[in-house]
Amino acid sequence: MRRAVFFLSDGTGITVEAIAHSLLAQFDGIDFERQTIPFIHSVGKAWEVVQEINTRCDLDGARPLLFSTLVDPDVRRVIRQSKGFLIDLFDTFINPLEDELGVDSSHAVGKTHGVRNYTAYKERIDATNFAINNDDGVSARYYDEADIIITGVSRSGKTPTCLYLAMNYGLKAANYPITEEDLESNELPALLRAHQAKLFGLTIDPHRLHQIRTERRPDSRYAALDQCLRETRTVEKMFLDHGIPSIDTSTISIEEIVTAIVQKIGLRKRLYG
Amino acid sequence: MRRAVFFLSDGTGITVEAIAHSLLAQFDGIDFERQTIPFIHSVGKAWEVVQEINTRCDLDGARPLLFSTLVDPDVRRVIRQSKGFLIDLFDTFINPLEDELGVDSSHAVGKTHGVRNYTAYKERIDATNFAINNDDGVSARYYDEADIIITGVSRSGKTPTCLYLAMNYGLKAANYPITEEDLESNELPALLRAHQAKLFGLTIDPHRLHQIRTERRPDSRYAALDQCLRETRTVEKMFLDHGIPSIDTSTISIEEIVTAIVQKIGLRKRLYG
Repeated sequence: MRRAVFFLSDGTGITVEAIAHSLLAQFDGIDFERQTIPFIHSVGKAWEVVQEINTRCDLDGARPLLFSTLVDPDVRRVIRQSKGFLIDLFDTFINPLEDELGVDSSHAVGKTHGVRNYTAYKERIDATNFAINNDDGVSARYYDEADIIITGVSRSGKTPTCLYLAMNYGLKAANYPITEEDLESNELPALLRAHQAKLFGLTIDPHRLHQIRTERRPDSRYAALDQCLRETRTVEKMFLDHGIPSIDTSTISIEEIVTAIVQKIGLRKRLYG
Repeated sequence: MRRAVFFLSDGTGITVEAIAHSLLAQFDGIDFERQTIPFIHSVGKAWEVVQEINTRCDLDGARPLLFSTLVDPDVRRVIRQSKGFLIDLFDTFINPLEDELGVDSSHAVGKTHGVRNYTAYKERIDATNFAINNDDGVSARYYDEADIIITGVSRSGKTPTCLYLAMNYGLKAANYPITEEDLESNELPALLRAHQAKLFGLTIDPHRLHQIRTERRPDSRYAALDQCLRETRTVEKMFLDHGIPSIDTSTISIEEIVTAIVQKIGLRKRLYG
């Protein structure tokens, strides 16, 4: 079974995609054909969208699902004229919220993702640059500035974790890859010792690590299962010996890793938009 | 005026934060004190959350707002017992969707952000690594592999744009910073000529660029307003002369830049979860 789905937004559509995605994930066996129409800013554009929806409806012989976070009342009025099945997030929740809060909403468009707040924007860019510049573990020069230092073996997910912390939380995350040398010494690497309170470890199932490394460098010593076993075991012991909090990244997504880290060590999100 | 807000999720809470954020942005003058409670997986945990909400309610003398994307019916039943003002996204929309689609939902938890799909996971990590490894413009070795090549002057927003394209769309984005030399030659840089169809330009207001660069290197030639004017003018002419699509990044966020790019050149999102 197939069904067309439109995500309608006056902004980027990111939010409405996310919520719709979590709802649609509840329906197995339907092939949803998704399309995002962002930046619907005018009544004229809204009429074009209605045309597109109606054409699709006639073609498919089934109402497309419409998920909307449109704010502008005139634009929403137009969209309501379409033949689609409309799920209007704004309409559904804004009135109950107005009642509960005892104030009127501003019905202002595009408040979610714009650069309204230059400080927040700068913080995010700075954190992203910080993550990129502190991705190698070579220099600990900036560890004083770091909010958190992520460590683990090669291919345990450190880089995307640091970037996600930067881009979505505005947190400065450095990345220290545990090297062959570190593993042999069985000690916490010297560069990390001064910053132990900021450390967070990523662990990974050795079989999963073997799979990931094999795709990168097939038949290498680096990817060999016994090497992966040795590295993961040593690192896990290191985390345990030094009381470094850690999380197993084998079966969870970057979003889940980051959310768990932030919750575990009580970091506060710098960016709430 | 202050009001406590809880984001309740069985996953990371990212989706419910986003939708709630766009709704709360409509209410000016209220200081929302936001707190995310992710990974609510059990009835026991749900009861703890109810306690926390009720305590807060009594302290504040006002009902906390609760935004929930909880899926599990038992967990949701517990949360409904709290004194908070509940906005239940699942409850509100899943039944109308079931009716419209003519099928029952699976009421399955945590379908949004998990690593269910190893291919999608790998694509995203690969794209992120690609963005990091192709961030310098030094080597065009991998431009054949790139989905898109982002170009513009230093500090126009190329790096976060490429990373966001990678992490949120799974697209391979390379980054070519236009250098002093490129600017003097007035030509499209040789490395880019072979890949003209993949190019996308970022432009920026020279005064904004001056501001950003001044924070980085105060009183440098790099940050001088006349230098910024010269660079932005030359680059804009280059984009125009070679028919390179571009977008002005001065006042919009990374999300908006990326959404506009994807829409403009018709790239398809690789990751729909």
